[in-house]
Amino acid sequence: MERFRGLSPAEFFHRNKEIAGFSNPARALYQTVRELVENSLDATETHGILPNIYVEVSLDPSDENKVTVTVADNGIGVPLHEVPNVFGRVFYGSKYVIRQTRGVFGLGVKMAVLYAQMTTGKPIYVRTAPMGSKVEGEYYLLIDVGRNVPHVLKMRFRKKERNRHGTVVRLTLEGAWALVKKRIEEYIRRTALITPYASIRYKTPEGEMIFKRVTRELPKPPERGLYHPRGVDIEILKEMLRSMNSNNVTLKEFLVKNFESVGERTAEEFLRWAGFDPELRIKDLRIQDLEILASKMKSYDKWRRPRSHTLSPLGAHLLEEGVKRILAPEFVAAVTRPPSSYSGHPFIVEVAVAYGGEIQLQDTPMLLRFANRMPLLYDEGVDVSRKVVDGIDWSVYKVKFPAPLAVVTHVCSTKIPFKGVGKEAIADVPEVERELEAAIRDAARKLRIHLVRMEKMLEVKRREVVYRKYLDEVVRSLSYITLISEEELRRKFEELIARELGRVSSDEEGGYSGAA
Amino acid sequence: MERFRGLSPAEFFHRNKEIAGFSNPARALYQTVRELVENSLDATETHGILPNIYVEVSLDPSDENKVTVTVADNGIGVPLHEVPNVFGRVFYGSKYVIRQTRGVFGLGVKMAVLYAQMTTGKPIYVRTAPMGSKVEGEYYLLIDVGRNVPHVLKMRFRKKERNRHGTVVRLTLEGAWALVKKRIEEYIRRTALITPYASIRYKTPEGEMIFKRVTRELPKPPERGLYHPRGVDIEILKEMLRSMNSNNVTLKEFLVKNFESVGERTAEEFLRWAGFDPELRIKDLRIQDLEILASKMKSYDKWRRPRSHTLSPLGAHLLEEGVKRILAPEFVAAVTRPPSSYSGHPFIVEVAVAYGGEIQLQDTPMLLRFANRMPLLYDEGVDVSRKVVDGIDWSVYKVKFPAPLAVVTHVCSTKIPFKGVGKEAIADVPEVERELEAAIRDAARKLRIHLVRMEKMLEVKRREVVYRKYLDEVVRSLSYITLISEEELRRKFEELIARELGRVSSDEEGGYSGAA
Repeated sequence: MERFRGLSPAEFFHRNKEIAGFSNPARALYQTVRELVENSLDATETHGILPNIYVEVSLDPSDENKVTVTVADNGIGVPLHEVPNVFGRVFYGSKYVIRQTRGVFGLGVKMAVLYAQMTTGKPIYVRTAPMGSKVEGEYYLLIDVGRNVPHVLKMRFRKKERNRHGTVVRLTLEGAWALVKKRIEEYIRRTALITPYASIRYKTPEGEMIFKRVTRELPKPPERGLYHPRGVDIEILKEMLRSMNSNNVTLKEFLVKNFESVGERTAEEFLRWAGFDPELRIKDLRIQDLEILASKMKSYDKWRRPRSHTLSPLGAHLLEEGVKRILAPEFVAAVTRPPSSYSGHPFIVEVAVAYGGEIQLQDTPMLLRFANRMPLLYDEGVDVSRKVVDGIDWSVYKVKFPAPLAVVTHVCSTKIPFKGVGKEAIADVPEVERELEAAIRDAARKLRIHLVRMEKMLEVKRREVVYRKYLDEVVRSLSYITLISEEELRRKFEELIARELGRVSSDEEGGYSGAA
Repeated sequence: MERFRGLSPAEFFHRNKEIAGFSNPARALYQTVRELVENSLDATETHGILPNIYVEVSLDPSDENKVTVTVADNGIGVPLHEVPNVFGRVFYGSKYVIRQTRGVFGLGVKMAVLYAQMTTGKPIYVRTAPMGSKVEGEYYLLIDVGRNVPHVLKMRFRKKERNRHGTVVRLTLEGAWALVKKRIEEYIRRTALITPYASIRYKTPEGEMIFKRVTRELPKPPERGLYHPRGVDIEILKEMLRSMNSNNVTLKEFLVKNFESVGERTAEEFLRWAGFDPELRIKDLRIQDLEILASKMKSYDKWRRPRSHTLSPLGAHLLEEGVKRILAPEFVAAVTRPPSSYSGHPFIVEVAVAYGGEIQLQDTPMLLRFANRMPLLYDEGVDVSRKVVDGIDWSVYKVKFPAPLAVVTHVCSTKIPFKGVGKEAIADVPEVERELEAAIRDAARKLRIHLVRMEKMLEVKRREVVYRKYLDEVVRSLSYITLISEEELRRKFEELIARELGRVSSDEEGGYSGAA
């Protein structure tokens, strides 16, 4: 006879930890750093705070498979009464709203806690000073796996200055540091690229890296939004209907209140097109009506585009700053495209093309991919960005391989169309592919102008060398013929050459101006 | 201010459906068929029943994106009081035991129900006749997403004959049939290969395929097992300790009772080696002790290997039957390796090598992968089997490409080491890689014998042609010299030739005997 039973979410993920990326001690360590850093960024920049982030990895001297990860930030902190659930209950969080964030699962940090407690048995340590609170709290906690509730081992509260805020998290887990340190370092570097306004200190057994912020300018934080009518399914509609306080609401009012970019007129036009009476009370809707409503909402082609106030791109200027900070190229040009959308989800594509300087020569463009300001390090081969970059004939833009060329792509969306379950590659949704190609070509055109100008400069330099080679001879001969003094003639010729070169060098002033 | 809240497991998977493979209407349809078929196989063969499975895909005539999937089996049925939870509550199931099964998540069919209700709003229909019960039940149900409980719309019970049993499930979801029908067909074909004892009828809008069983022999079902000491973590130890009825149990008794292949003596030797008193009461264990215990259990190298009674390989004979059923080759040889283990998890590798017949010529060996009798259709490029097959120099085995060569690999384990989260590729764990290579080489050697013999046969045939070409002339001349009659001489020569050919053809008797 079969025995049936239910699992708690914590039990489920304890048994299936690879689903959340904790498949082995190397990947688990990478994932832990990543979850903590991304939480710290979300706790700072989203709330208008310039991030100061400290990341430390240290090894137990008696067993170097036991790795302690500490991440500290100056974020808004976690409300003290929420700490146990936020760190100790799977599927609990603050990110279940429609706007661009890094984490969306309410799963990441809990998985790190679970992994730590199943491999080393150690509780997570959390110290948090919530913004505006007069008290800060310190916690040691585990997850009660069977019941999916936090198990607080110790907690302590202290008075603090009102304006101090931030969170420190420390975890000890079994990790394969040697196998994964290169990848974690690359993750930190790329995070520093996409957050030029953040100061990041990264300390490891091998040494320390410090990325000072290169700007104090923060991108505008995303606002919360409503669903676009094309982005919902029957279940979401049902939940919206349940959450309406009164059943006397009409269908028209329901649409206007719950959806993005739907005014009275749009709602009425749509409902008539879909065969519904706009004045129908929502309490009179049957389940079949919901099915028709959802399907009509998807196929109606006169909705306004979703607005992009829920998104927070970096902007071309910050993206260029970030690229300069990490790649130190000779030239960079960034492009932020206007908002677009797919299946009711708004998205924005940004791209930077960087050339020369410290970028290594390579046979194909080096690609750095980001989604909602998160670096994507795995599965590049199947990402839409790779496809677009490989589809471009770079000789059109005067690039000859091997070349020191890097392409940075950043897709922001309330719903990134990830390919499969790894969340490391973006699918080739036609709308996104189109925007990426437009952005890359736009930036590449600026690179072309730069490369043509560089070619001209070289040409001028070559001419200068030729001039100077014959200058003495010409001056002497001319002086002999014209009887003008050699000094006078030399001065005039020097002026001529200087003017020629000056014209070029003043064009180049400002170093990165080609990108503006 | 951030708003915090918890999600139910159903809400979580509703929002993150791609985690369970339901990322788009094509993949969701594939996944739905797969989940239902695998449940049906688990409900039959695991309980000693020869499976009769009926799969039907039909399209709504008014909207062909609305796809209805029906799967019926003659399995043991679902206990009537469990039906609502089994189909309507995420993380509920009967498969949370240590033994080889297909599904392990308690998630698959619920995801199909969720996907159906969010895309078409239609409930799942279940009719089940549990084995030994006098009643059968019929249900229409949805999942209450917010609370993760089943919402039964209608149910009905009927008397039935005691010996009738089985389950019918029907779902209507949004699916992209045209995009995915080839892949579903391939899935069904490969399922038929790995279950030669199953009869499968597959009906689609395009027609019907019928796979009659080719044998009535079932592989021995897997038994439930205990954890191997190397396969546990601290959380599992804690749960085991909690489940002991008495706290007066000693550490030694605890190990003997809870673990695979651990007798009194092994337990005592291990505990002394690890620095524990075997007579210590488990109630006196501290959390630090657990950590040491778990880590010592992993590193102790004198445990006996895990037993393989939890596994259920097909066996070489059934695997050959399956290959003949689907690939219809000229030659097939299958090999089942003895049990092995990695990190405390037992596994068995089986391999078949098939050649000629209806197999197409290809430049590299065609590969068909299976794990716990499930076909793996995606991500072949990163699977350990592909790596091993590509690493073999096939000319050693007399195979010249392009060749009509297929390699079938089957890994059985209580924990398949899947690569990443897609569960479509097996990682290159050294132990598994080694076993795969040994098995493939073993089968390939049998193929080599076959190919050498075929070469020899061709050689003989060639000689026969030569003999016959000169036979008349030789007989005539010899008769003239020896005065023996031409008839007599011809008879003797014919006998000689026949004996030569007879030797070869009697070797070949039985067609597939080269594989035995």
